[in-house]
Amino acid sequence: MDFTVKQIASLLLGDIIGNAEAKVNQLAKIDEEAKSGSICFLANPKYENFIYTTNATAVIVKDDFQPKQSIDTTLILVKDPYIAFTKLLEEYNKLAQQYNAHQRIGIEQPSFAGKNLKTGERFYLGAFAYVGNDCEIGDDVKIYPHCFVGNNVKIGNGTVIHPGAKIYDNTQIGCNCNIHAGAIIGSEGFGFAPQADGTYKSIPQLGNVILKDNVNIGANTTVDRATIGSTLIQEGVKLDNLIQIGHNVIIGEHTVMAAQAGIAGSTKIGRMCSIGGQVGIVNSIQIADYTQIGAKAGVNGSIKQEKTTVIGAPAMEFKNFMKSSVIFRKLPELQKRIEQLEEKILNLPPSKG
Amino acid sequence: MDFTVKQIASLLLGDIIGNAEAKVNQLAKIDEEAKSGSICFLANPKYENFIYTTNATAVIVKDDFQPKQSIDTTLILVKDPYIAFTKLLEEYNKLAQQYNAHQRIGIEQPSFAGKNLKTGERFYLGAFAYVGNDCEIGDDVKIYPHCFVGNNVKIGNGTVIHPGAKIYDNTQIGCNCNIHAGAIIGSEGFGFAPQADGTYKSIPQLGNVILKDNVNIGANTTVDRATIGSTLIQEGVKLDNLIQIGHNVIIGEHTVMAAQAGIAGSTKIGRMCSIGGQVGIVNSIQIADYTQIGAKAGVNGSIKQEKTTVIGAPAMEFKNFMKSSVIFRKLPELQKRIEQLEEKILNLPPSKG
Amino acid sequence: MDFTVKQIASLLLGDIIGNAEAKVNQLAKIDEEAKSGSICFLANPKYENFIYTTNATAVIVKDDFQPKQSIDTTLILVKDPYIAFTKLLEEYNKLAQQYNAHQRIGIEQPSFAGKNLKTGERFYLGAFAYVGNDCEIGDDVKIYPHCFVGNNVKIGNGTVIHPGAKIYDNTQIGCNCNIHAGAIIGSEGFGFAPQADGTYKSIPQLGNVILKDNVNIGANTTVDRATIGSTLIQEGVKLDNLIQIGHNVIIGEHTVMAAQAGIAGSTKIGRMCSIGGQVGIVNSIQIADYTQIGAKAGVNGSIKQEKTTVIGAPAMEFKNFMKSSVIFRKLPELQKRIEQLEEKILNLPPSKG
Repeated sequence: MDFTVKQIASLLLGDIIGNAEAKVNQLAKIDEEAKSGSICFLANPKYENFIYTTNATAVIVKDDFQPKQSIDTTLILVKDPYIAFTKLLEEYNKLAQQYNAHQRIGIEQPSFAGKNLKTGERFYLGAFAYVGNDCEIGDDVKIYPHCFVGNNVKIGNGTVIHPGAKIYDNTQIGCNCNIHAGAIIGSEGFGFAPQADGTYKSIPQLGNVILKDNVNIGANTTVDRATIGSTLIQEGVKLDNLIQIGHNVIIGEHTVMAAQAGIAGSTKIGRMCSIGGQVGIVNSIQIADYTQIGAKAGVNGSIKQEKTTVIGAPAMEFKNFMKSSVIFRKLPELQKRIEQLEEKILNLPPSKG
Repeated sequence: MDFTVKQIASLLLGDIIGNAEAKVNQLAKIDEEAKSGSICFLANPKYENFIYTTNATAVIVKDDFQPKQSIDTTLILVKDPYIAFTKLLEEYNKLAQQYNAHQRIGIEQPSFAGKNLKTGERFYLGAFAYVGNDCEIGDDVKIYPHCFVGNNVKIGNGTVIHPGAKIYDNTQIGCNCNIHAGAIIGSEGFGFAPQADGTYKSIPQLGNVILKDNVNIGANTTVDRATIGSTLIQEGVKLDNLIQIGHNVIIGEHTVMAAQAGIAGSTKIGRMCSIGGQVGIVNSIQIADYTQIGAKAGVNGSIKQEKTTVIGAPAMEFKNFMKSSVIFRKLPELQKRIEQLEEKILNLPPSKG
Repeated sequence: MDFTVKQIASLLLGDIIGNAEAKVNQLAKIDEEAKSGSICFLANPKYENFIYTTNATAVIVKDDFQPKQSIDTTLILVKDPYIAFTKLLEEYNKLAQQYNAHQRIGIEQPSFAGKNLKTGERFYLGAFAYVGNDCEIGDDVKIYPHCFVGNNVKIGNGTVIHPGAKIYDNTQIGCNCNIHAGAIIGSEGFGFAPQADGTYKSIPQLGNVILKDNVNIGANTTVDRATIGSTLIQEGVKLDNLIQIGHNVIIGEHTVMAAQAGIAGSTKIGRMCSIGGQVGIVNSIQIADYTQIGAKAGVNGSIKQEKTTVIGAPAMEFKNFMKSSVIFRKLPELQKRIEQLEEKILNLPPSKG
């Protein structure tokens, strides 16, 4: 699909400097690889040099952009190039989704559907997907190949279950969720009671998992079901790939977690928190709303104060960790200075005290 | 299924205070969400307040419990409420399992079975499951949809392979194991020999994986097969989700590992060890029996003394790490004190030495 | 298959001490478990004791090996026992592969193939595998059961996609790659734009993933597709299990990464780097060629100097980290020495300055 720069500028409410009739047919990054026919954006001043040499046909720039050299490419001037480009991506994506949605409707065979399956409009069930008994599935739900959906599962409108995701019995999933490939929702939590002889006995895990609306579960992420009650992921939570969520964890609205982080059983995370990659959080604690946890932190106690920022293992206040880290690098020097002090003191005249 | 409080108290050998004929039909946590018809337990004093306001029909409490206010709910008095509740969960689970076992028997279609497949009583093979040639499978084995079982695999009585787990050729699995969804058993270990030109050559991985009885493998956990010989997971070992076990690793009986921990190739872990979440253990070392490794530790050398407790990266004795961690937080203050000392020394009269 | 020691020595260009006609039929580790009929190797002096007691029929040793006791087993003397044994493994593997390749040819049913599928010679498509529309697949490609291959995917000659791997639309895979079980290639990157009200909006992820030749992707590893453009894994890169590669990451030729490491979005890793287990690398930085990153390091800034070795979180030069770590263990002692100094200073006669 070809568009003119004029069409795009009109969509973005931007002004044009250069050839308004130039045609673009793909989105690209502004670097040496952008080809003729591409449209890029320039938001980060660090990439400004590319604008003078790029082969891209058009570049979206901020409306106060002042070129330092001559420019061959056509410019589209907007208030915020990043937001404008995102808008462009979305429009492109709508087209792509229309195309995909068109493709992904209907029941591919062979697939497996249990008893009493209720489905909505424009349902897609991929080949080799398995849906158990007594499931209720909304409109525009897409279940890709190799997904397993157990018995008595509810899935809201517009939710997409990507290839190979596994959803255990009794899971409840809201609307417009994305469960990415290989994610496991509702597996048995790690519940083992130590016995007197040092062996472990399995504790039955009878609860389920509830995902509210607009939840994102990354590829190969695992969410354990509750021992009793529910593991609960509130509205708008975004989990990245390879994350572990223990049994009975509760994650508050619009909290985001980066890849490979883990939360142990029964811990409760507040709303709008931000949790970095490879963070670990111990079991049975509470994290206040708006907490920010830096990458690789090990959180071993509750955080009660909202808007706290922590990092390190064990986790501590961000600024303090950074100060201590700087000195950690200088420890050999510090040790030396202590030795020198000791030597000097030794050589002093004896105290009169 | 409804039960009377009397029936339950009799099962738990407990005494009743309140309505022995009250009917309960579900297990719940003691909090504001417990509904009429629920039975809960109170073990942690922190939750005592709930007992005065709960809508639960019955609560299991310790036999010396002294209420501070009037109580509406019926009490069951036992020696240890947590153990009693666990027993209740187990009984409930037995019923649920009987129900499930009833459901999950037989061969769903389409499924794929290779040549010379030997199976036992009450076998379940889910739709889209794949079993290769020359496999021997015991009684009460359940292989869920989308599982892959390679050639020449042995699986003992009562083992359950959850949806989408992959078992490579020549794997041996004992009795009553649980292999959770998405787990990979026997994939090719990371064996690459560096070449003179800086590239890597793949080393053939010819061994297998052996899981003894009562082993638990968590969701999306990966266990690599041996280069030669066997990667060996001994009886009763419990692995949580998203764990990595390298080629030729040996894990001793009844050792437990929390989520996202990893053990590099050829390392040998003792019996009844406890390994925390996100722990990393380097290759080719040995960890003594009963070792406890705290969350996020990085173990880079053998631990020879039994019952050692370590934490930190690099790992060190637990108490020492904790002491050093406390001082780490005070490093800026310590640096300041050194500066002050230096200043004071400078201002001292010159030494006579 | 039985071989004589003579046959093997001739393959390895080695000399024999002992029975040249003895027959071996398996490769084994030199320990108490090696059985009669096995051939082992001795490279590490630490295992020398085994050579005097082993039941193995033959052992490959270095040509200058001087026994300290009498030896029952037959010896094959070579220049480098490790390399010789690797060669033996390879020969064994060739036989095994011929056997396997023989087994794994053709289309098992049921499987699913979309429109316009082009495949090469000796193609294997396992039962329950799914291949979308417009895919181009080379010679000797093996796609195991439960794999998902989206639309418009290209796969080069000799590449193996192991059970249950998922390859999203538009992925390009080179020749002789190994994508292990449960790996996810091309899933949606973690792109969410924060909104003014604290919620997040999904950013369309329109790019793809490109894997060049000889790439290894470990079991349950996830590689996100680019927002725009390509996530790029260059020739010869070896990724272990459970690794996370963010959107738009570029990894240079022949770089190796150990298990559970993660690289955040848009970071560029150089050639022939070595990245340890559980390492985390933040987004949008650059790591120079030949960088070595120790296990568990947290890299939060670009590394510009080639051949740098770092470790720690935040990462620092290896030697410095080790020195500081040693002193970290002694922090309580250091604190005490500062206290003692302060006390001594206090007791000094007043300064004349």
